[in-house]
Amino acid sequence: MAEAAANGDARRRGVPRPTNPMVTPLLTDLYQFTMAYAYWKAGKHLDRAVFDLYFRKNPFGGEFTIFGGLEECIRFIANFKFTEEEIKFLRSVMPTCEDGFFEYLSSIDCSDVEVYAIPEGYVVFPKVPLMRIEGPVAVIQLLETPFLSLVNYASLVTTNAARHRLVAGKSKNLLEFGLRRAQGPDGGISASRYSYMGGFDATSNVAAGRLFGIPIRGTHSHAFVSSFMGLDEITDKALTSSDGSSKCEDFVSLVQNWLIKIQDSSSLRGTFGETSQSELAAFTSYALAFPNSFLALVDTYDVMRSGVPNFCAVALALNDMGTFHCRYKAVGIRLDSGDLAYLSVETRKFFHVIEKDFGVVGFGKMNITASNDLNEETIDALNKQGHEVDAFGIGTYLVTCYAQAALGCVFKLVEINKQPRIKLSEDVTKVSIPCKKKCYRLYGKEGYPLVDIMTGEDEPGPKIGERLLCRHPFIESKRAYVVPQHVEELLRCYWPGNSSTSRQELPSLHETRSRCIQHLERMRPDHMRRLNPTPYKVSVSAKLYDFIHFLWLNEAPVGELQ
Amino acid sequence: MAEAAANGDARRRGVPRPTNPMVTPLLTDLYQFTMAYAYWKAGKHLDRAVFDLYFRKNPFGGEFTIFGGLEECIRFIANFKFTEEEIKFLRSVMPTCEDGFFEYLSSIDCSDVEVYAIPEGYVVFPKVPLMRIEGPVAVIQLLETPFLSLVNYASLVTTNAARHRLVAGKSKNLLEFGLRRAQGPDGGISASRYSYMGGFDATSNVAAGRLFGIPIRGTHSHAFVSSFMGLDEITDKALTSSDGSSKCEDFVSLVQNWLIKIQDSSSLRGTFGETSQSELAAFTSYALAFPNSFLALVDTYDVMRSGVPNFCAVALALNDMGTFHCRYKAVGIRLDSGDLAYLSVETRKFFHVIEKDFGVVGFGKMNITASNDLNEETIDALNKQGHEVDAFGIGTYLVTCYAQAALGCVFKLVEINKQPRIKLSEDVTKVSIPCKKKCYRLYGKEGYPLVDIMTGEDEPGPKIGERLLCRHPFIESKRAYVVPQHVEELLRCYWPGNSSTSRQELPSLHETRSRCIQHLERMRPDHMRRLNPTPYKVSVSAKLYDFIHFLWLNEAPVGELQ
Repeated sequence: MAEAAANGDARRRGVPRPTNPMVTPLLTDLYQFTMAYAYWKAGKHLDRAVFDLYFRKNPFGGEFTIFGGLEECIRFIANFKFTEEEIKFLRSVMPTCEDGFFEYLSSIDCSDVEVYAIPEGYVVFPKVPLMRIEGPVAVIQLLETPFLSLVNYASLVTTNAARHRLVAGKSKNLLEFGLRRAQGPDGGISASRYSYMGGFDATSNVAAGRLFGIPIRGTHSHAFVSSFMGLDEITDKALTSSDGSSKCEDFVSLVQNWLIKIQDSSSLRGTFGETSQSELAAFTSYALAFPNSFLALVDTYDVMRSGVPNFCAVALALNDMGTFHCRYKAVGIRLDSGDLAYLSVETRKFFHVIEKDFGVVGFGKMNITASNDLNEETIDALNKQGHEVDAFGIGTYLVTCYAQAALGCVFKLVEINKQPRIKLSEDVTKVSIPCKKKCYRLYGKEGYPLVDIMTGEDEPGPKIGERLLCRHPFIESKRAYVVPQHVEELLRCYWPGNSSTSRQELPSLHETRSRCIQHLERMRPDHMRRLNPTPYKVSVSAKLYDFIHFLWLNEAPVGELQ
Repeated sequence: MAEAAANGDARRRGVPRPTNPMVTPLLTDLYQFTMAYAYWKAGKHLDRAVFDLYFRKNPFGGEFTIFGGLEECIRFIANFKFTEEEIKFLRSVMPTCEDGFFEYLSSIDCSDVEVYAIPEGYVVFPKVPLMRIEGPVAVIQLLETPFLSLVNYASLVTTNAARHRLVAGKSKNLLEFGLRRAQGPDGGISASRYSYMGGFDATSNVAAGRLFGIPIRGTHSHAFVSSFMGLDEITDKALTSSDGSSKCEDFVSLVQNWLIKIQDSSSLRGTFGETSQSELAAFTSYALAFPNSFLALVDTYDVMRSGVPNFCAVALALNDMGTFHCRYKAVGIRLDSGDLAYLSVETRKFFHVIEKDFGVVGFGKMNITASNDLNEETIDALNKQGHEVDAFGIGTYLVTCYAQAALGCVFKLVEINKQPRIKLSEDVTKVSIPCKKKCYRLYGKEGYPLVDIMTGEDEPGPKIGERLLCRHPFIESKRAYVVPQHVEELLRCYWPGNSSTSRQELPSLHETRSRCIQHLERMRPDHMRRLNPTPYKVSVSAKLYDFIHFLWLNEAPVGELQ
């Protein structure tokens, strides 16, 4: 027992448990257990099976997807083992099954499972296996549901995040604000993690920041503003300068004086009247708490007639504190409603006037963050209208993948006991590609990926400079010759099982994020554009093509018209 | 310390921790902490605040919503306490904050928080608070994000499940099959739980079944079928009858003989030819493993020319085993592709022919389960076409709430230090209803709920038989007199804090499910129909109406046209 435990530890060494403790071997569909029993009863449970995990269609009307979720799958299998309580529960669910089966279940782990996968964060395409999983058929079936559950949403939200990055542009800050609207707590935590992987800069989610080392951002809400009634609520009015050299005993008066100066400035006179005193009190309090990082939500009452002037009064008061090089510098504002294009432009103008009228260098460049139900379409519309937003806070549409709430990854048997298997369907797009396969990405002269190609496992791989026929897997007439300038094997070994293949290390989230950003930049732009993107080509070798069609004809029943 | 711990235990007695261990006080937005610090700095952190949690619009184009997620919120606050590691992490995120603040954070729990809520599983409507949360403003703000995260998806998916039940009808079995397409593992587990609450009968998700006592269902997949090559793979062919009285040494031959009899029967001759032997082997193996609960997926090759005949052969062989009263009785088939209306009707006809030709009483009533991307619309379309489906397996569209992936619950400040607060917006539907309120549901003569009404906390409640004016909260002209026959106070105390109010017990999931089903049946049918449902009326008392509009005018800035 001790030895077995030690082997177990060695096996999963360096691979921690799944992030969510609820991810256990019971997190699967019942039919995986009933099938396991039927296999066991038939003495087939050890039959060596190969399954492919892949998707059939890119999400969001696009022509690319980002692969996410691999690390969690590897964590899952590295720690795959039933507890006694779990076995006891399964006995109660399947009371007619023989004892020997439960003894078998108690004994299994994933030490004889092999997982080959495309690295996490890669740009991926339909039909090409993201993962190839091989092992005893009964065990591999048990992995189907948890793998799909771990990959589907992860890949979907990473792709969604990457699409938001593409439309927002490289220079903007993208903040994920989705926890409250996510599909449950784990949805929120996964969304933060995979949005960051797909190119976001930070999250509001403290737990996700802690778990994954993602930068965390946040300031205050409307409730904070309306919780103040007026400036007389502020009892401790003192503020010390950032270098500690001086102390302002009445920061509130300093703010009030600045507000009067702004109201009276020749360029702004008449543009606003009395501002909300509860808002001014909230801003002043927030600045007293965070004089180094003052960012205010300005739309609780009226952006241009209250929020922005109040913000500027507080920002100018902060700017008065300390000597030149260590003045407090306000960060900026957030807009959470209204016409974001118009309000950001007007706010920017206001900031420039302040810079000019009061000689505060850099005030015009104050940060403007926008939020409020943003998505790809609204950011695209803002771009077309012209705006002055520096950072976008995106929640609901990002984390729920509102535009398409599911990626349909599937898990299909492609070989058992060395016999290739095909899953037929009247819908050709649903026919599976049989055989244990290798997959390659072929790059052209200009450095862009040209085509992905799948071959049988024993075929020689594509060679640099050698002409190669790439065939559409199902449409006879679609084929093209390619002379690759660079060949990349896509499926790497992440879990070698009992084989001697060396295992790819799992990179950090930051490394995966960098890889994802690099890979997106490496794609030919017409595959990535929002409107009518060009499909990226996915192909099979001539030999595999012939075999697919041989098997297909062989298995499909011949109809009889009556 | 021991005493404090004991108090803590007493406080949360009977309330277990949140189901998902990742639900901790850090599962919130950073701005809740920055606000807490600003409140603390301003000495306002103990200000007594009242927040309402509500939504603005019913999902899925409907006119009702089901409230889910309350139990998890109560579990969360009952166990709300920062660990030392969490405080340490927060210090690193907010390095400029004073030590005293972190000492304060270390000290807080929810013992002085009061939560009033509508019972979980109730039919609920826009603008009426699902929860009213009262306590120190800094603490209540920390609860905002976790509460929203726990309620939003739970209510959304419960409502989605209830809508699927309404369209499928009471007599159908509804099975939740969504784990693989859910938004992460926790999404899958929550989906199973809340689909059951909303009226589903069972789930495929073993972990959810174990956690919540939901019935679990499942048989086999396409991969199981294609993993078999032929009948010679079956080595142990013996089957003992259910009463143990007899043993069939070669069940495989029995099946083969039945297939020939079916092929040769006068009514079926010529309707199918050679069936798939790999499918027949899979069905036979599955029946040998589960002779008492044989249900076969019949669309791997061809439903009518292979799957259904193969199923019938195995089912008839099972029916041969044992004496009359303890024969094995096959359960039925599952269809997972194609024209489900047509195929279910044809399959039913086939079953009736078998019943008649071979004199097997009840064979015609064999269960037909349908799956494959089902949703409200497709079930409605099946109903219109006519079908013979007994059970629907629903996954993606149910659990991702594909038709509308988010419910926009919000959490708004309505009172602080006894001062009512209103959140204004240029969009009238976003203006919040101020004041600490009581909420009632008024029932009419026919037993239907007529209207929900909100009043100020100190107003006398509506009385049975007394005429009462119910006003639309924002539209002056919309008002109606009601004479309630029954008055139900909606907000009950689920967490009394330091008050002496007694606490409502949290019912079991089964009780909540029954309540939900009852409440749905109690609604007037025109509110519930799919097409153009009648909106249910939500109102305020005359007194509250006047106060809202007084406060609104008072707070809204007067514009100036230029």
